[in-house]
Amino acid sequence: MTSRRELANAVRALAMDAVEAAKSGHPGMPMGMADIAEVLWNDFLKYNPGNPKWPNRDRFVLSNGHGSMLQYALLHLTGFELPMAQLKRFRQLHSKTAGHPEASETPGVETTTGPLGQGLANSVGFALAEKLLAEHFNRPGHAIVDHHTFVFMGDGCLMEGVSHEVASLAGTWKLGKLVAIYDDNNISIDGEVEGWFTDDTPKRFEAYGWNVIRGVDGHDSEAVKKAIAAATAQHEKPTLICCKTIIGFGAPHKQGKEESHGAPLGKDEVAAARDALDWRHPPFEIPEDIYAAWDKKKVGAEREQQWNEAFAKYAAAYPELAAEFRRRMAGELPADWARQSQGYVDKVQADGPDVASRKASQMALDAFGPLLPEMIGGSADLAGSNLTMWKGSRSVTGPDGNYVHYGVREFGMSAIANGLALHGGFIPYDGTFLVFSDYARNAVRMSALIPAHSIHVYTHDSIGLGEDGPTHQPVEHLASLRLIPNNRVWRPCDAVESAVAWKEAIEHRRGPSCLIFSRQTLKHQQRTAQQLADIKRGAYVLHDPADTKFKAILIATGSEIELAMEAARTLAQQNVPVRVVSMPCNEVFDAQLLEYREGVLPGWCRARVAVEAASADFWRKYVGLDGEVIGMSTFGASAPAGALFEHFGFTVANVVDAVKRVTG
Amino acid sequence: MTSRRELANAVRALAMDAVEAAKSGHPGMPMGMADIAEVLWNDFLKYNPGNPKWPNRDRFVLSNGHGSMLQYALLHLTGFELPMAQLKRFRQLHSKTAGHPEASETPGVETTTGPLGQGLANSVGFALAEKLLAEHFNRPGHAIVDHHTFVFMGDGCLMEGVSHEVASLAGTWKLGKLVAIYDDNNISIDGEVEGWFTDDTPKRFEAYGWNVIRGVDGHDSEAVKKAIAAATAQHEKPTLICCKTIIGFGAPHKQGKEESHGAPLGKDEVAAARDALDWRHPPFEIPEDIYAAWDKKKVGAEREQQWNEAFAKYAAAYPELAAEFRRRMAGELPADWARQSQGYVDKVQADGPDVASRKASQMALDAFGPLLPEMIGGSADLAGSNLTMWKGSRSVTGPDGNYVHYGVREFGMSAIANGLALHGGFIPYDGTFLVFSDYARNAVRMSALIPAHSIHVYTHDSIGLGEDGPTHQPVEHLASLRLIPNNRVWRPCDAVESAVAWKEAIEHRRGPSCLIFSRQTLKHQQRTAQQLADIKRGAYVLHDPADTKFKAILIATGSEIELAMEAARTLAQQNVPVRVVSMPCNEVFDAQLLEYREGVLPGWCRARVAVEAASADFWRKYVGLDGEVIGMSTFGASAPAGALFEHFGFTVANVVDAVKRVTG
Repeated sequence: MTSRRELANAVRALAMDAVEAAKSGHPGMPMGMADIAEVLWNDFLKYNPGNPKWPNRDRFVLSNGHGSMLQYALLHLTGFELPMAQLKRFRQLHSKTAGHPEASETPGVETTTGPLGQGLANSVGFALAEKLLAEHFNRPGHAIVDHHTFVFMGDGCLMEGVSHEVASLAGTWKLGKLVAIYDDNNISIDGEVEGWFTDDTPKRFEAYGWNVIRGVDGHDSEAVKKAIAAATAQHEKPTLICCKTIIGFGAPHKQGKEESHGAPLGKDEVAAARDALDWRHPPFEIPEDIYAAWDKKKVGAEREQQWNEAFAKYAAAYPELAAEFRRRMAGELPADWARQSQGYVDKVQADGPDVASRKASQMALDAFGPLLPEMIGGSADLAGSNLTMWKGSRSVTGPDGNYVHYGVREFGMSAIANGLALHGGFIPYDGTFLVFSDYARNAVRMSALIPAHSIHVYTHDSIGLGEDGPTHQPVEHLASLRLIPNNRVWRPCDAVESAVAWKEAIEHRRGPSCLIFSRQTLKHQQRTAQQLADIKRGAYVLHDPADTKFKAILIATGSEIELAMEAARTLAQQNVPVRVVSMPCNEVFDAQLLEYREGVLPGWCRARVAVEAASADFWRKYVGLDGEVIGMSTFGASAPAGALFEHFGFTVANVVDAVKRVTG
Repeated sequence: MTSRRELANAVRALAMDAVEAAKSGHPGMPMGMADIAEVLWNDFLKYNPGNPKWPNRDRFVLSNGHGSMLQYALLHLTGFELPMAQLKRFRQLHSKTAGHPEASETPGVETTTGPLGQGLANSVGFALAEKLLAEHFNRPGHAIVDHHTFVFMGDGCLMEGVSHEVASLAGTWKLGKLVAIYDDNNISIDGEVEGWFTDDTPKRFEAYGWNVIRGVDGHDSEAVKKAIAAATAQHEKPTLICCKTIIGFGAPHKQGKEESHGAPLGKDEVAAARDALDWRHPPFEIPEDIYAAWDKKKVGAEREQQWNEAFAKYAAAYPELAAEFRRRMAGELPADWARQSQGYVDKVQADGPDVASRKASQMALDAFGPLLPEMIGGSADLAGSNLTMWKGSRSVTGPDGNYVHYGVREFGMSAIANGLALHGGFIPYDGTFLVFSDYARNAVRMSALIPAHSIHVYTHDSIGLGEDGPTHQPVEHLASLRLIPNNRVWRPCDAVESAVAWKEAIEHRRGPSCLIFSRQTLKHQQRTAQQLADIKRGAYVLHDPADTKFKAILIATGSEIELAMEAARTLAQQNVPVRVVSMPCNEVFDAQLLEYREGVLPGWCRARVAVEAASADFWRKYVGLDGEVIGMSTFGASAPAGALFEHFGFTVANVVDAVKRVTG
């Protein structure tokens, strides 16, 4: 009979050995949290190693993701598809064992972690998803959605501001199935934390309305078991379990010290740790009895089978609900989505409303929302400005909610949205002013990296925001968001492009889309059927001269399309025929075949002028050194929008002059 | 005799009238906080309207900056250089009364606020600056540095994560002269906050070690006075005063409601408010007796005069300290700075060390630190990785500190640094991994907008970070930081450029500099005296073929300079002579005269290849449509650095091939 400590030591040994082999990594956290993890993964966590995507599994998140070897060891030992060969290739190119856990790479990893605090935030999203799905789908006697979310986190996660934002919301939402286990080891990279981290963390979390379990010895398996049992026995409040641990537990000379945190222990210390832990096995070798005690393949399969049977009964009683649950968890759109959504786009083109694109966005939500119960919206306290609420929006604090009042918490919002997306069953969208995408910046990056199907709605997209001034006016944000790999940024020029942008964002599952909308009214543009169809290619010819070849190309987006079109008319009168290209999404355009791209921006025409009320330099990619850009190179100013566009040179006269210079 | 309420009503009336005239703005907060502000500004705050820069003034920060009219009204009424004509031009182009307070525009505004939470963070920086300067300069009987920092903040500030980061640090640092006044009005933009903000805020701040004064009636002047007196009577802990207020106080139909928050009250409601407040004066008219009661010109001048006399005595007793205090508060560098710093640059060029640029950065700190007692460093728990500590670094938690262990709090760190810079007496630098500049993003933007002389040190600057993987590898961050207006981004290629980057960052006072350093070793580059002198121009010719004209230009930065130089050697052997341009700071280069720029990148040579292990598209600005870029277009991966550079195409062979293609 293996002891709990022996089981935990298997994790410690694998962590030490893998870090040693990789010559880099973080052994301290896995060794410190091994006893806690052993209790959680053997006694509480519900999962099936044979099917990491079983819908009703408990979610486990390693918010202190630098301790990735803890998670890899657990996945390996319990029987997930992560063989020892992968552990031996920890931190090597093309391995499934990256330096930090990556959801896209490793079976059983729920979310990509490492940027501190965001794993906790994702977990709040997981727990909110579970709560909302349970409310929506469960029926008396049929608790088909019923799981916990467990998150490990360290001092670093708790110092980060995002921990405040999301812990506050978890308390407000009473996420009783969220259990956060705090690895209170008193060490961060700079050393013992008392010089920079003196919070009374239990008291802080009580202030958020959490259930707090204090002073658990993280190396006493019975104490840990009792704490987790207490946490899961109540569903009224999220629980914080504060576990005192020793970082690098078992490494006789380095434990309890910063030296064990982020570097290999070294050959001698690893040997000494093997002695101290009484672990007598060579590197990367686990005795059969240890494997057997960890193995969850059978029990996991049985657990899923039980759920499958329960689900079958549910499906018999509630066939439509069951089908809808399956559809939503599979991330499939409704059968009539394509037809209905295209119908709406066509209708807007026919109706031709002149509206602010933020209003057009709300109109799109009113059209698409009823088709998509999986849409869950929200805004960081700007619902009335972002226009992210639609007719069917209901607060998640009430019955059958689909709208989150995130409060003034942009970073927490987007990181929670990533969790909602990853859980399954939801397509989240969030909202704030474009300038405050800064606050959420790394969560947007994470939605692209994970990837998570999160839709980020950013309104008030330029100096057109007006009087609030430069603190609130985005300048660099359009270009900056476009720089994030795998991130689609749409900036529509009218209600039609806004509808297409929403449709594309909803259909594009392998990453985020940022939808950028204006505060001010934008004029409707006429389009042929082909032009309408080409919006989704990211860029298309919105205007060509009727009877003659164009001499220059104007490229614009969003509110500057009107300006470009007006300039084109003026230039036509002056016998300078120009093409106008609308480019709502350059990333999508860049991914088109060369033939299409060349058709829109033919190489022979270097007389190009880009117009966008944002960072000018971005556009050199399309206009090169011979073209011109009418854009921003400074911050904005506080004044009415009209005065600002004039002041910063967004005038027909300036566009006309620029075209004349490049055609010179 | 005017009552306190009448004095406060003058603020309310000006706020209503200015918002009404501007047809936009936020009347609710100024009307809600007017009574508190009246007590603070008339009974406690020490300032001299005739000299907003008096060094020992109390600092006042409006963290809920949307209530800007509160601050403008106070500045106007007390006698600062902000005439009524400016209040009438609230939110208009070129006025001194922007939508949110801007330090660069308005006398008496200490910092630019609006992005919520950051005003509080700046205040923590102000209070830390005061504490450290007092410790350093004061002598028994000579308290020449002795002032408070007062900050107003609302629910929004307290929801933001950054409030957690900085309140935690303020508690740890025991900033006893920091007084934060919380406008607890139960309203944020989305409405009554109980659906999204249920924190027990007093308890939360007690958990940070603050002195908390609960339940003050923000419309009871005596209660407010008593609370502020209690807060300022102790200097052991920062104080939070929780004031219950009614947003839009005095507007009979809109007070206490979201409607009063962010829009003009409307003509009828303004009239009704005048009735309700018994304020019988036309818009923008203030009776003489009210002006007289508010006027602080005389008392302010006397207060400064008293301090000047005290300072004269201090100067007589401690002439060197006094001179040093004057120098530091004036933001002047030491007399021998230019000579000594250039001497160090010359020495590094002569020594020619091959070191990681993060190490070169530390060497520069070791050289410059002893010359500059105003330098105050720090890192977000990565001191040993960022190498931001130098031989003379001493923690601010000990005696005469000049180094801040910020903990894992990037956003709070940079926003506090902005406060340190704005206070005067300090040149702050902070540090984290480049990828986590994301977390601090808006604080970096604010240092550019304010502008604040903050230096942001970002190490581990590319996939060269290696095994930690894509969560920790910057890709888009170089280009993204370069997009922020007025932000200088330096990415040096060796120890010499690193020294110059530090020197330039220290000398450039009108905004931030971001210093980007490698994890891995970089090779020293040979330079002539002219090349050495030209580094500070942002880009220069590092290599030209000896006896022939170049056929192509290679542009690179940082770690890719070695690669470009190696490729140039290979190409020379193949009879393709190329120029290599090192461009450590494109913003500075772009600001050079055309003649210099043309000398470095002559227009006749379109055969250009840029090499940088970061977003490729940025470089189209310099290579146009005819050139090529060897850069990144995806996220990185977890592997040793060498394997990654190879995998992502940063090889001599690829650079050589690209040059051959463009020279075609």
